Amino acid sequence: MKMWGGRFDQEMNDQAWAMNASIGFDRRMASQDVRVSLAWVHALEQAGVLSAEQSLIMTDGLQRVLQEIETGVFEYRESDEDIHTAVERRLGELVGPLAGNLQIGRSRNDQVTTDFRLWLLEYSPALDKLLKQLMGALVMRAENDMGLIMPGLTHLQPAQPVLLSHWWLSHFWPLARDRQRLDDWKVRLAWLPLGSGAMAGTSFGVDRQALAESLGFGRPGPNSIDSVSDRDFAAEFLFIAALIGVHLSRLAESIILFTNPAFGYFELSDAYSSGSSLMPQKKNPDPFELARGKTGVLMGALTSLLATLKGLPSAYDKDLQEDKPQVFMAYDQLLSTLPVMAGALETLEVFPERMASGIRAEMMATDLANYLVSIGIPFRQAHEQVGALVAEAHATGKPLEEVALDTLETIPDVVIEQVFSPEAAITRNNAVGGTSEDAVKKQLAQARQALEEE
Amino acid sequence: MKMWGGRFDQEMNDQAWAMNASIGFDRRMASQDVRVSLAWVHALEQAGVLSAEQSLIMTDGLQRVLQEIETGVFEYRESDEDIHTAVERRLGELVGPLAGNLQIGRSRNDQVTTDFRLWLLEYSPALDKLLKQLMGALVMRAENDMGLIMPGLTHLQPAQPVLLSHWWLSHFWPLARDRQRLDDWKVRLAWLPLGSGAMAGTSFGVDRQALAESLGFGRPGPNSIDSVSDRDFAAEFLFIAALIGVHLSRLAESIILFTNPAFGYFELSDAYSSGSSLMPQKKNPDPFELARGKTGVLMGALTSLLATLKGLPSAYDKDLQEDKPQVFMAYDQLLSTLPVMAGALETLEVFPERMASGIRAEMMATDLANYLVSIGIPFRQAHEQVGALVAEAHATGKPLEEVALDTLETIPDVVIEQVFSPEAAITRNNAVGGTSEDAVKKQLAQARQALEEE
Amino acid sequence: MKMWGGRFDQEMNDQAWAMNASIGFDRRMASQDVRVSLAWVHALEQAGVLSAEQSLIMTDGLQRVLQEIETGVFEYRESDEDIHTAVERRLGELVGPLAGNLQIGRSRNDQVTTDFRLWLLEYSPALDKLLKQLMGALVMRAENDMGLIMPGLTHLQPAQPVLLSHWWLSHFWPLARDRQRLDDWKVRLAWLPLGSGAMAGTSFGVDRQALAESLGFGRPGPNSIDSVSDRDFAAEFLFIAALIGVHLSRLAESIILFTNPAFGYFELSDAYSSGSSLMPQKKNPDPFELARGKTGVLMGALTSLLATLKGLPSAYDKDLQEDKPQVFMAYDQLLSTLPVMAGALETLEVFPERMASGIRAEMMATDLANYLVSIGIPFRQAHEQVGALVAEAHATGKPLEEVALDTLETIPDVVIEQVFSPEAAITRNNAVGGTSEDAVKKQLAQARQALEEE
Amino acid sequence: MKMWGGRFDQEMNDQAWAMNASIGFDRRMASQDVRVSLAWVHALEQAGVLSAEQSLIMTDGLQRVLQEIETGVFEYRESDEDIHTAVERRLGELVGPLAGNLQIGRSRNDQVTTDFRLWLLEYSPALDKLLKQLMGALVMRAENDMGLIMPGLTHLQPAQPVLLSHWWLSHFWPLARDRQRLDDWKVRLAWLPLGSGAMAGTSFGVDRQALAESLGFGRPGPNSIDSVSDRDFAAEFLFIAALIGVHLSRLAESIILFTNPAFGYFELSDAYSSGSSLMPQKKNPDPFELARGKTGVLMGALTSLLATLKGLPSAYDKDLQEDKPQVFMAYDQLLSTLPVMAGALETLEVFPERMASGIRAEMMATDLANYLVSIGIPFRQAHEQVGALVAEAHATGKPLEEVALDTLETIPDVVIEQVFSPEAAITRNNAVGGTSEDAVKKQLAQARQALEEE
Repeated sequence: MKMWGGRFDQEMNDQAWAMNASIGFDRRMASQDVRVSLAWVHALEQAGVLSAEQSLIMTDGLQRVLQEIETGVFEYRESDEDIHTAVERRLGELVGPLAGNLQIGRSRNDQVTTDFRLWLLEYSPALDKLLKQLMGALVMRAENDMGLIMPGLTHLQPAQPVLLSHWWLSHFWPLARDRQRLDDWKVRLAWLPLGSGAMAGTSFGVDRQALAESLGFGRPGPNSIDSVSDRDFAAEFLFIAALIGVHLSRLAESIILFTNPAFGYFELSDAYSSGSSLMPQKKNPDPFELARGKTGVLMGALTSLLATLKGLPSAYDKDLQEDKPQVFMAYDQLLSTLPVMAGALETLEVFPERMASGIRAEMMATDLANYLVSIGIPFRQAHEQVGALVAEAHATGKPLEEVALDTLETIPDVVIEQVFSPEAAITRNNAVGGTSEDAVKKQLAQARQALEEE
Repeated sequence: MKMWGGRFDQEMNDQAWAMNASIGFDRRMASQDVRVSLAWVHALEQAGVLSAEQSLIMTDGLQRVLQEIETGVFEYRESDEDIHTAVERRLGELVGPLAGNLQIGRSRNDQVTTDFRLWLLEYSPALDKLLKQLMGALVMRAENDMGLIMPGLTHLQPAQPVLLSHWWLSHFWPLARDRQRLDDWKVRLAWLPLGSGAMAGTSFGVDRQALAESLGFGRPGPNSIDSVSDRDFAAEFLFIAALIGVHLSRLAESIILFTNPAFGYFELSDAYSSGSSLMPQKKNPDPFELARGKTGVLMGALTSLLATLKGLPSAYDKDLQEDKPQVFMAYDQLLSTLPVMAGALETLEVFPERMASGIRAEMMATDLANYLVSIGIPFRQAHEQVGALVAEAHATGKPLEEVALDTLETIPDVVIEQVFSPEAAITRNNAVGGTSEDAVKKQLAQARQALEEE
Repeated sequence: MKMWGGRFDQEMNDQAWAMNASIGFDRRMASQDVRVSLAWVHALEQAGVLSAEQSLIMTDGLQRVLQEIETGVFEYRESDEDIHTAVERRLGELVGPLAGNLQIGRSRNDQVTTDFRLWLLEYSPALDKLLKQLMGALVMRAENDMGLIMPGLTHLQPAQPVLLSHWWLSHFWPLARDRQRLDDWKVRLAWLPLGSGAMAGTSFGVDRQALAESLGFGRPGPNSIDSVSDRDFAAEFLFIAALIGVHLSRLAESIILFTNPAFGYFELSDAYSSGSSLMPQKKNPDPFELARGKTGVLMGALTSLLATLKGLPSAYDKDLQEDKPQVFMAYDQLLSTLPVMAGALETLEVFPERMASGIRAEMMATDLANYLVSIGIPFRQAHEQVGALVAEAHATGKPLEEVALDTLETIPDVVIEQVFSPEAAITRNNAVGGTSEDAVKKQLAQARQALEEE
Repeated sequence: MKMWGGRFDQEMNDQAWAMNASIGFDRRMASQDVRVSLAWVHALEQAGVLSAEQSLIMTDGLQRVLQEIETGVFEYRESDEDIHTAVERRLGELVGPLAGNLQIGRSRNDQVTTDFRLWLLEYSPALDKLLKQLMGALVMRAENDMGLIMPGLTHLQPAQPVLLSHWWLSHFWPLARDRQRLDDWKVRLAWLPLGSGAMAGTSFGVDRQALAESLGFGRPGPNSIDSVSDRDFAAEFLFIAALIGVHLSRLAESIILFTNPAFGYFELSDAYSSGSSLMPQKKNPDPFELARGKTGVLMGALTSLLATLKGLPSAYDKDLQEDKPQVFMAYDQLLSTLPVMAGALETLEVFPERMASGIRAEMMATDLANYLVSIGIPFRQAHEQVGALVAEAHATGKPLEEVALDTLETIPDVVIEQVFSPEAAITRNNAVGGTSEDAVKKQLAQARQALEEE
């Protein structure tokens, strides 16, 4: 069935039909579509356009359609151009020509984007929940691994010792910001398009404020042309999804590195690894590689929609139909990736000695320079002086600590030993946000609080 | 000058140096860099790391450096690796070895991103102001053009008549959402990295909360590793910039179309057009074409940064240096484009008769169907019936109104005339957000209010 | 079934399995996978690794598997990790443990990319054919519409009159370049990975040159590490697909514009248009809007794969699994779009009078300037002089030709009339590649020749 | 100066001018612009449009302009809209009003893209040369490091031992394919637009075939509308640049990993490293991080241009002006990155013992399975059996070789020792493209040959 045709002499070409039809993906919003129609029928009744009786029949019919959808018995047909058509077709089968009143004062232009926004309003909490689950896994790790020391890297080169708990939490905050972004986005998502008609608004005295409230939207969209053509909410969602992907990819990259035996800091559970068809010894971090690789897909989805939107004249153009496959794909991908990463982190085994053995004396070079500062040497000179010791250590093959003990004769040995203690180095970095155990415990409290927020 | 070298035997290769150096673009943050250092010196003094005297000398020196920068006499050298080095080098010339204390407990890793965030905090209001200027131009047009009717298009085909004011405002709301996005973004932008050191935090008892306040930041970053590697703020800015670009491109596309003589709705002022080197008659809408084309550049900047960030292990990697050229470029582009678009809209001439002559009787087909609904015909049937009249109008070459008058004999002629009146059609679409003059005037009041908000 | 597990104590987590499995999309290469295995079994036999008898049993079994696939009775199971596993599992059911020899000296790393390249080698000709079909439609239009004049636009403003046939052919050459690009790409596509093992090559004396020939590849890949990690062929395909999309989008944009009644140059067949659920009069160019919008999707697929590849360490990483969904999607999209565009162009109706009425005297302003050059006035002065006449025409509301007749008294009227004749203007542009009928007919011959090339 | 204005009453707004002007970047094509004009003047003379005397004066003048440009004394002015205007302005200063004839039959639309293509034809060989330099460095390393063994990784986990030379060459072939791509691209680049006028062709009987030859182009563009709007050559260049970037990023990623002391396979020369402002011990692989990060920029440039092109109606639109900044940027970036990477590889120090110590007995698990196959066990069973030994080795903490010796009692110890010899494992992988020394030496010969090709 299609919702138009009176003015056409000829049927649509089959290939064109196949290209045009969206039932293949918009059926996913079937439940939303019916509930939007239920609200619309109610609004039309309130506005006196439909009689109480008409409204009752249509409402009963729509409820039955909804039930069919929810119980999985609804029959989608390839000949239904889209989900709106499928629902109207089915309603017609149930209640007769009255079904044709569904589209009074309404167009698929305002309907489809209302369905889509409603879908996102209803489904984004599940994403938020999985973000929280992964963040919870990071918090759990930070709690359980408290006290373990790992080599901190910058430029992927040894930098300074840090607490493993601090490192876990460094992956918590990006996700916390992502949750904030989702919160901010929802305010804009909740502008109701329904009642915008094809683009000029609607003429039946419908109360759009009441409609918005009944469907859980924050406000009616203020401009009907904007309402039918606005896809900002989809683009913003895809951006947030891509950024979540970037955050996951950075965590994944590190997990992949640190499970390599050259580091050997972590080992994945068998439940989150896979093997090789050829090499019997293999244990590969596939879920993390996929999380990293799929970030490209999320970025592509964002590029795709922005490119589709660019340069479109205002009001509805058919190009906009391409919004949904990208959003559904991004959503599904995050929903499948997040719990796997959470599970893999929860079951990951840590090898404290491997991390500890990665701490080299050189990683306290900054501490030595800082000590020199504390006895009155300007930092830049202290830095150079320590740099020269490092060069000597390299040239002679001696550990830096030994070179320091040999060279800095005026400094008591006990001081130097303290300077080169990784535990002491960590404890020294005790400003807010730093890696000392005190600071990390305060941070952990903040993280727990952020997690408890709605 | 460079800030390191003690451990190196050999100078950096010239080509590698050229590739590495960032002074070519980060000098743009020179003022921010000095002010961040002023705050840092103060914090080191408060923490007892620097004596009051040392602090005074360094502060005086930095103030002089700042003055040199602000008056344009500061000398940037190619041999300065970056802006931090240039400032420390100059401070050293002014106050001697004490300058070497600038980097106590601080790394370029936390410094550069503090500078960058501060730059955005200080420069983004100018972007907001220009957004408001363009939005003001749209509001002005909506006010001045009130009452003019234009053909509303969907699928770029004639749809329904709308008020030109309504159409102008359809370009207002996307920008209003962009301003909201900037507001939301600023909260996350204002996380202070300073005091995170290279990645492990700082060990000098610095009060980061006080530092944040003194520099106008909302809070200290909660995790030092995250703080030096977080570029979410840059990515989010580039996303908002790309979306602003998309919005401008859609407005531009329509202006380009409607200044073509086939439409002839608008003519640009000579001040915002350009000509051809070959064709003497040409008057081209170059600023709008550029606004549309440059949206691609904004999208590219976003892709660029996301791709750079993807898969980076946490903490600082040099790849992050690529954040600034993209952000500066996007910022500059919007700052040059927005006022030109505002100026072009303010000076654009409207041709009401050309718009009116584009209203065809067919554009009231929906009104006719709606009328049939009002006399009891289900909408889908009404739609088909009117569709058949449209087909007949096409076949016979008669206007739809005439066909309707001929065919629908039971309907009084005066009703049909009313149905086919564009003015009446517009007035009928009077729900919130619709195109009736009443609804548009209410919308205009909302728009003015949105404009007055912070 | 999975092809590994000996060293694992624990089964894979269900969600991780679902994320990991590729059977959902790589089953599309089922036929290729079996034929690659047939070639491999033969190669192992030639190398003396399998006995003639073993080879015969395995070959017979694989032939049966192939038949099951081709007749649609092959049973894919969710528990098969990928297509390679499904085939080995089924072969085992048919021939017993011998099936386990399929993977001798071979890994899924070299197998999957061999399958994928073979799929593209076999399926890209269909894309080429559809490109030729659309190009053929453009040539047909150019032939049939010969002699019709349309207003040529630059900056979407009236520029100079051109032959419609010339304009149709302007959309032919970009596609001709795309076909060249596909040809060039195929040479690189046809590097055979098989025989590269997991990454180190193979140890069974397999003749890879013979293997390449037997599977229709141009050469064995020269480096086993490169062979298993090279996805250039997929990226290059996606680039070409995106560029084809750009070309289609530009054609689509013009068709959408020119079917708007303000232009009215073209009308689409009902078979390639669709209607509105609300507005009975609507006839929308949906297929062209979709072709334009879906170009964003193709661009996104390219971004996606490049982002996935960036920064991967060499040899196989699981991230590479993301190559296929993007390529299949891009391929399918072009295969559905190209014939619809061809069909729509073939059945499109042209309105010569509407095009003719769009030719304004001003569009011959260049011709007038050229005439002034021919009587000795330097071009820049001629351009300014004609520009002034255009200004006068605008100010007085007179057509430019009339102004020219009035002002340029020394020029014979007949000359001016000739200057302002669109037909004469077109005839004058007779250099190679220009719009004169002679030049266009030569161009058409070139186009026909390009079309006949392999 | 600007090349138009006769029809305009009002000067362009300053901000609009600044947005519109391209002299800031297109001056880079100044030399090309003059030489294109020299060819054009000659063509106009040949066509009888300019007298020999006029041509001589203009040619002499243009030669002087060219000399001024080449010696750096040419004065570019902000008031010159673009490079074409600057050249015509200067020519006018030198030869008077005759300069105004430069634009006879020519538009900036065909001129700018001719300049741009010519620039690429002239500058792309330098890129090719630097690609060859880097490929040469890889070949040199492969030669010098012959015989050294490194752990081959897949999924970043230990896979099989390979020759370091083989690994170096795995980075050679992607660049060889990039050079092929550049070769293929040049054929399409060399379509001459000149003689296409604004879009309709040219009317002065110019011999475009001769023009093409005189400027080193392969052929005149076959369609004037396509010629002024085709930016395929720029998009294809940006794709190739992005793919080169991807290849560099993959090499860079590995270098960054392997210079981390946990691997310690490589150490960079001081000349290609940099230090930290805070941590005295640091030696960072900045050039490789930047090469990796800047790949994002190349990807962004590609996205940018494709997005700009999408949906543009055919013939010239001003949006196309955005092509050059992206191409120049990508070109410059590759030109600065490639020699640094070559230099860094040439001077990199290799630590054979570190690589050797990374070879674990497990990496010969495949060899053991292969041995079992050779004694008649189907591969899948052999794989499982060896997998179980690996599990036992993990459980007991014994090396796999020891477990194998203990368990597989029927196999002679000497066989097992041979199986577990990394050298023997490498030698076994001797099929074409494999890692045996023989195979790699043949590959090296192929690589040298590819390098010597044009």
